[in-house]
Amino acid sequence: MIQKKQIKRDQETNKKTNLLRIIPLGGQEEVGRNMTVFEYHKDIIILDMGVQFPEEDMPGIDYIIPNICYLKGKEKNIRAVIFSHGHLDHIGAAPILLEQLGYPPVVGRPLTLALLKNRLEDHKKGSAKQLRSIIIRNITDRIRLGKFLTKFFPVDHSIMDAIGIIIETPHATVLHPGDWTYEEDPVSHRKVQYHQLAKLKRPTILMLESLGATNTNKRVPERVMYNNLQRLISQAPGRIIIGTFSSQIERIKQILEFAEKIGKKVALDGYSMKMNIEVAKQLGYIKVKKETLIPIDKIHRYPDKQIIVICTGAQGEGNAVLSRIVNGQHRFVQIKKSDTIVFSSSIIPGNERTIQRLKDNLYRLSDNVVHSDIMDIHSSGHGTAEDIATVLKQVKPDYFLPVYANHYFLKEAEKLAIREGFRKENIFILDNGSVLEFDHGRPHLTNQKVPTSYVMVDGLGVGDISHVVLRDRQMLAEDGMFVVIVKIDAETGKLINSPDIISRGFIYMKENKKLLDQTRDKVKKILKDRDPRTSADETFIKNKIRDVIGSFLFSKTERRPMVLPVIIEV
Amino acid sequence: MIQKKQIKRDQETNKKTNLLRIIPLGGQEEVGRNMTVFEYHKDIIILDMGVQFPEEDMPGIDYIIPNICYLKGKEKNIRAVIFSHGHLDHIGAAPILLEQLGYPPVVGRPLTLALLKNRLEDHKKGSAKQLRSIIIRNITDRIRLGKFLTKFFPVDHSIMDAIGIIIETPHATVLHPGDWTYEEDPVSHRKVQYHQLAKLKRPTILMLESLGATNTNKRVPERVMYNNLQRLISQAPGRIIIGTFSSQIERIKQILEFAEKIGKKVALDGYSMKMNIEVAKQLGYIKVKKETLIPIDKIHRYPDKQIIVICTGAQGEGNAVLSRIVNGQHRFVQIKKSDTIVFSSSIIPGNERTIQRLKDNLYRLSDNVVHSDIMDIHSSGHGTAEDIATVLKQVKPDYFLPVYANHYFLKEAEKLAIREGFRKENIFILDNGSVLEFDHGRPHLTNQKVPTSYVMVDGLGVGDISHVVLRDRQMLAEDGMFVVIVKIDAETGKLINSPDIISRGFIYMKENKKLLDQTRDKVKKILKDRDPRTSADETFIKNKIRDVIGSFLFSKTERRPMVLPVIIEV
Repeated sequence: MIQKKQIKRDQETNKKTNLLRIIPLGGQEEVGRNMTVFEYHKDIIILDMGVQFPEEDMPGIDYIIPNICYLKGKEKNIRAVIFSHGHLDHIGAAPILLEQLGYPPVVGRPLTLALLKNRLEDHKKGSAKQLRSIIIRNITDRIRLGKFLTKFFPVDHSIMDAIGIIIETPHATVLHPGDWTYEEDPVSHRKVQYHQLAKLKRPTILMLESLGATNTNKRVPERVMYNNLQRLISQAPGRIIIGTFSSQIERIKQILEFAEKIGKKVALDGYSMKMNIEVAKQLGYIKVKKETLIPIDKIHRYPDKQIIVICTGAQGEGNAVLSRIVNGQHRFVQIKKSDTIVFSSSIIPGNERTIQRLKDNLYRLSDNVVHSDIMDIHSSGHGTAEDIATVLKQVKPDYFLPVYANHYFLKEAEKLAIREGFRKENIFILDNGSVLEFDHGRPHLTNQKVPTSYVMVDGLGVGDISHVVLRDRQMLAEDGMFVVIVKIDAETGKLINSPDIISRGFIYMKENKKLLDQTRDKVKKILKDRDPRTSADETFIKNKIRDVIGSFLFSKTERRPMVLPVIIEV
Repeated sequence: MIQKKQIKRDQETNKKTNLLRIIPLGGQEEVGRNMTVFEYHKDIIILDMGVQFPEEDMPGIDYIIPNICYLKGKEKNIRAVIFSHGHLDHIGAAPILLEQLGYPPVVGRPLTLALLKNRLEDHKKGSAKQLRSIIIRNITDRIRLGKFLTKFFPVDHSIMDAIGIIIETPHATVLHPGDWTYEEDPVSHRKVQYHQLAKLKRPTILMLESLGATNTNKRVPERVMYNNLQRLISQAPGRIIIGTFSSQIERIKQILEFAEKIGKKVALDGYSMKMNIEVAKQLGYIKVKKETLIPIDKIHRYPDKQIIVICTGAQGEGNAVLSRIVNGQHRFVQIKKSDTIVFSSSIIPGNERTIQRLKDNLYRLSDNVVHSDIMDIHSSGHGTAEDIATVLKQVKPDYFLPVYANHYFLKEAEKLAIREGFRKENIFILDNGSVLEFDHGRPHLTNQKVPTSYVMVDGLGVGDISHVVLRDRQMLAEDGMFVVIVKIDAETGKLINSPDIISRGFIYMKENKKLLDQTRDKVKKILKDRDPRTSADETFIKNKIRDVIGSFLFSKTERRPMVLPVIIEV
């Protein structure tokens, strides 16, 4: 009897474990963008390990990495980490996470893995040696990873070697293009379509980046963008300075090749940009003559009309190259009236005002500033609402999981799919940490949520910045701090001398002597008035100072600095 | 001989002072938006006194007001301050600046002056009594202010009583519509056009808000927006909650009137919104029956289908009503699945991510969230590039001064005007603090720059936050602070006990005992190693601690907290 029960329980557990589990793990607001976990019994594969950049309420934080609590104890089950392409929001967290997970094998196309290797070396010298790489030499390669059979397909994105993945499992086939756009007329390869994905083993589950779900504008076609850029480059009366993302490797390649064709020289500036292009060159993805690419400190050797500078910093980041050029702090480039400055980039939400300021300063220095508001010189690497509809029509998936965007975009993608004839029950909207189970082809969104709290990286610290520390930073930023140092006689409990005050970020001390004197008097009064028998203890005095001085300073200034009392017994 | 020279110099000075001077004073990046000064000999009139909201690198700052250094000593020359309309970026700084300038007369339409009065009372109880108001009862009123003759004309904007001003001076006629848009088919009044301004005394100078200089999209017409809003309101399956700016008084009026027509009830929430509507009602600008407008705590007395809530907070501001509703912290409104939530607002640059988060949370609670990405439910109160061209064609000014926008927009407006046939030499691009002189109708942009440095308001402090304080706040926000308290024997110079450490916003102290111990050891070593004869002084020890501990903490954490040493002699 007991045996029977045991067997039944085992069968159930077995049944329960023989499920396909899909868990978007990384990315905070953008569901699954930085990392997704696929699990089947004792096999796990991971798609991407990227970073997210901090939000405005996270001062001092460098970046955020996926929370991998769920994988703790399951390290031995991880068959591989597949990287869809070499952008930081897909590979940036790999140095930390691969190490934490004991370096499982990594799978990717050559450029992706080369960029990954670089990222590891940048993080810790020599760590790339730990990589166990499985290179996808050919897009038709198939790789068995435990019970998973993985295949690949090309996608259009702003970097070479971007791929989509097909994961065949006993229960269903998952299709995930990663980051993608839909280019009707690509300049460097044949048009990418997805009809072939409709023929895979059913049921199919399409996980689709849906960032463009509400974007009903027409995408700027690549060819239009390149035509505009080429015209600007050809007709520039002097030098041309192009600010773009270091991740736009395909675009930089196109500019380099065009420059060579018309006999211009290109100087790159920006650490990550130079590194990315160097990697792409080494792999033969960018083929230009040695003399086309010149160092930035040699641009003065050529006539202005022959010079193209491509640099980072089009988002107005304080230390990036374009800002340094504009602020006159660049060693080799100072803006001239005859320069043409081109922003070949989009605006990352949150950077609007910084970019406006950068543009203001540029317009003061040059009469030829070109940006997307006035010419189509940026083409997005992400699909629009129309593109999402196109892919749905081509792939005809059985199930649709919009991903890689804020929740509200996913909801809008759902509406879009329903308008395209999809049934609502075949669409699933996940959060990070959601667990979607497929049992013999039938999907089920569980109530389970795996941990996804923010893991923030600040300097060398990974995940050590707690909410307490962040809240303190926010408070300090708002109204500064106010340290009150009190010396008291250990025997009599009486105050010795006048209290010392150290304050930063609250008021300009030199101009507020009166307020400081009044504060000292308040502190003296607190110590004098207290009953030495009942309130001799430090905590009491500290709390009293914090309350009284906090209120006093607020009444005088309507600011709330962090008040920190220090009691020193002598 | 000396006398002749004296007379000539007087004549020159006299000639020099008999000029019309135009000085955009307020607004920081947006030239002249918050305040403009017009000066002729001993007469000054001021247009608007608004606030600018702080930028991301100004933590804790409430708002920024125009710098009025230039007016110091000239208070007696100020004939009046004219207010173009009642929005905060045009009246918000008035309580502080009017007081500083000894309450010169104020000129404006009834709603504008009523809102101004409210703003003053809000700032300081009883201060509105100081106002010397000249009410523009009729748009055809003319007011002589010293040598200036001022007239007015109606403009389309998102608030009632918005006016443009005409300033006739001995040298030229200035035309300034203030904030404006161009509505082809307004819902509440006849179409506003500007042909009549072409007939004024020449030369004419058009100062024109040019925020839309690069905006080549079609503006959403008011009528389209209202039709959409009315349809949403009529068809809502349950309550409808509309988030908008408290400044959209015209829109709120339209919604109120429509609600009354179809028998729905409206509850307003948000301090400034309720105040604005109350003022407009008192003046008879909004006429609805008593029972149409209900208090927010009474909404439960009516069926959901009958309820409209209009509230502030569509920008995702933490404490505003919509955020409180979404976070479940509102006393009377909790979101239901059947609620329709409408964002009838634009996105203010810098708020993108906060709004995304608000939308995410709303989409989780309701299936009916409507915003500008999916329906035209916001119509901008500002003109587009096409509108700017239209106004230029109608007014045919002799000189064109694009204003009220970042420098690069002004440059783009210049290009636009040139495309419209304007001559470049008749266009002037000013900065804040620039002085444009008109001498018998001939304009001249001087090299003079009057002070325009930021005057920041933080709590009760006006202009007392220096760059030092701001920089400290930024540093504190980045990596927190680290106070090292050292007790030394006044006689021997030796350390007493172990140093005390107080740190906030740097690391989580409880989990970093080892680092703190190591730091204490470092401090002890500094004190022990020093030569007591040469380095007994406090400054030396403090600097040493700052340097050594700063470097040590960076080497261990790659963070740079503000290190503050405190030496206590016992």
